[in-house]
Amino acid sequence: MRDPIEGMIEIEFPDEEIAKIVYESVRYEHESVPYRRSRIEFTREGRRIKLRFTAQDSSALRGTLNSYLRWIKVAIDAMEF
Amino acid sequence: MRDPIEGMIEIEFPDEEIAKIVYESVRYEHESVPYRRSRIEFTREGRRIKLRFTAQDSSALRGTLNSYLRWIKVAIDAMEF
Repeated sequence: MRDPIEGMIEIEFPDEEIAKIVYESVRYEHESVPYRRSRIEFTREGRRIKLRFTAQDSSALRGTLNSYLRWIKVAIDAMEF
Repeated sequence: MRDPIEGMIEIEFPDEEIAKIVYESVRYEHESVPYRRSRIEFTREGRRIKLRFTAQDSSALRGTLNSYLRWIKVAIDAMEF
């Protein structure tokens, strides 16, 4: 059996207010996904948001990452900063 | 005059080999952009790649970030890991 695949995405925003807005909007998506093939920790510290992920299956991981990157992009596009 | 907008995106990959492949493929795009409205530092350390950016203009920053996120997504999709 292969070792689990682990990784991390961390984004530091210009200020905490922006980080909060992006975090809350992505967290809404994060919590509404009913079924996951990857384990994801999604946290905010000050003006940084962090995704820490673990998966057994690389295609699941890729799909999960792509979803989060898309949600982050949508949140950034929607912001007036 | 507003302060410059600064931020950072850091991605930690499952291993250094994957980080190298994504880094090299995004670096190719990074170096072929002839004109930039944002200043970007793009580096790799071990299995992490990091984008550090500065812009005066938030719409320029948003456009730049979106380009990098898209290139990273394409590189991840193209990988067999």
